[in-house]
Amino acid sequence: MKTLRKEITERKVKIAGMGRAIGGRKLQFKNQIRYRLMSGESLLDLAEAAARQALEAASMGIEDIDIIVCAMATPLQAIPCNAALVHERIAKGLDIPAMDINTTCTSFLSAVDIFSSLVDNGRYERVLILSGDTASAALNPRQPESYELFSDGAAACVLVRADKGENSAVLYGRQKTWSEGAHDTEIRGGCGLMTAFCMNEENREDYYFDMKGHRILKLCARKLPDFVDQCLEEAGMTREEIRLVVPHQASRALEMIMPRLGFAEGTYIDRVAQYGNLVSASVPFVLCKAIEEEKVKRGDMILLMGTAAGLTVNLLLMRY
Amino acid sequence: MKTLRKEITERKVKIAGMGRAIGGRKLQFKNQIRYRLMSGESLLDLAEAAARQALEAASMGIEDIDIIVCAMATPLQAIPCNAALVHERIAKGLDIPAMDINTTCTSFLSAVDIFSSLVDNGRYERVLILSGDTASAALNPRQPESYELFSDGAAACVLVRADKGENSAVLYGRQKTWSEGAHDTEIRGGCGLMTAFCMNEENREDYYFDMKGHRILKLCARKLPDFVDQCLEEAGMTREEIRLVVPHQASRALEMIMPRLGFAEGTYIDRVAQYGNLVSASVPFVLCKAIEEEKVKRGDMILLMGTAAGLTVNLLLMRY
Repeated sequence: MKTLRKEITERKVKIAGMGRAIGGRKLQFKNQIRYRLMSGESLLDLAEAAARQALEAASMGIEDIDIIVCAMATPLQAIPCNAALVHERIAKGLDIPAMDINTTCTSFLSAVDIFSSLVDNGRYERVLILSGDTASAALNPRQPESYELFSDGAAACVLVRADKGENSAVLYGRQKTWSEGAHDTEIRGGCGLMTAFCMNEENREDYYFDMKGHRILKLCARKLPDFVDQCLEEAGMTREEIRLVVPHQASRALEMIMPRLGFAEGTYIDRVAQYGNLVSASVPFVLCKAIEEEKVKRGDMILLMGTAAGLTVNLLLMRY
Repeated sequence: MKTLRKEITERKVKIAGMGRAIGGRKLQFKNQIRYRLMSGESLLDLAEAAARQALEAASMGIEDIDIIVCAMATPLQAIPCNAALVHERIAKGLDIPAMDINTTCTSFLSAVDIFSSLVDNGRYERVLILSGDTASAALNPRQPESYELFSDGAAACVLVRADKGENSAVLYGRQKTWSEGAHDTEIRGGCGLMTAFCMNEENREDYYFDMKGHRILKLCARKLPDFVDQCLEEAGMTREEIRLVVPHQASRALEMIMPRLGFAEGTYIDRVAQYGNLVSASVPFVLCKAIEEEKVKRGDMILLMGTAAGLTVNLLLMRY
């Protein structure tokens, strides 16, 4: 495993505000609550609501934002990018640049990782990051493991330069991808490799989300513990210094995996029973809720982490 | 129009090698030559070939690369991201992170813009950027303006830290998005907002690429001249200092638009007749060819620029 140059400089950024929104149709599978888009509701409605809430929390208007970044796992249209469609909802008439960043379920972490550097180096001052997906658009009723797992939601975050005297910062980010897992979580049909025009009775299942849960768990169990250990060592951080871990709400296996990574119950957020897996919105959604509930306060060290289709693993350390 | 903080620092990076590949099926529409994927050929084949060529030109192996970035306009699958699928072709068994960056046709410029900063600040040392799209997957035979315009191709670029004594650098990058143009270039169907399952006889046209060429030209004519002037002023650069302009090969209107932007015939690359519009691969493909033909040499100032669905405009100044 190649070790990249250790970063020793903190990126002086802070989360100025967050927002979240969830599908209006509530479902229950045994003790698991899920939310899906209502008829007539679109992910763009949720993204818009989350963005407006985040801007309000940051006491800003959209005209204060330097770039709109969609950190979503799935495309709304093949063209244009998601950020252009969100721009139309919240920034029409303005010339704010719009861009997508995608590492599937960990896209939010990637966006914060990248744009904390670009805020720190002065390129941007105020970044609006949006995550969210319509999982329900591709769920297969014949695959209960995934059909009963996901919710549709969105979350937004205003990332800004930290003022002098504030100690908010991004301290460390690291991602790895092992493409042995590229087909363990996928939607094969609908886009460039197998377009909608190719759908027939025989390959119809290829257009659904397909998750090989057992294979993913095995690959994660093999890769994740070393990855987390290596990251914390590189960052010079102990588990005891972390106030709260915000993991991707991947599945109900979270409560099994987190202790194996050295994070005991109560040290991490587990809202899988209440909200399910919100795909790219999982981490920012539960982080937003934790901030609302004052479980995270200014100065607290938080660890965002997650696995994503790829297989990608991603980890970000920040002082809120 | 808000002016961002002017960047005065050069990002010490260089293009160490490039590669390109194009669909194996040659077509001709009057004097316009186009290339499309052959039966059984996939964009992943082209991306793999372009990547291997770029690595060879840079005298590197894939194990030397710190991150694989897909800067493509369109998704190959809804999940996982394109970079994970390319990773599987060229880096399986390695743990190199994989990420997508998307601003549609100017994705390559966005990726170079972002990763030149992240190489300059020491986060990464060697970045492999891939662009490419399968335009032919969604072209509508009943819209000749677009049907006869596009080719399928890919291009790759190894971006590295410039050594001491080398004067290669990225000097300036700027993007703007006006979502008044969000629906002037689009594929409405196939993804989250209108999935493959929703296709019927009435909405079948929505699953094709749809370009409102006249509207785009009008919006570009209104926005582009000021944008280019403002960028050059911010960068403190005159048109005379630029050795070669590498524009997105948007359409045959290039020869009409470029002089209006102050770039006379011969100062910019126009390969539309030979290759058509290669979507995200346009700029890196013709740049790669210009490097092969020694039309661009070390130390030359080049201006990459383009328009993209969004409507996004993007501009990047670099010393090759």
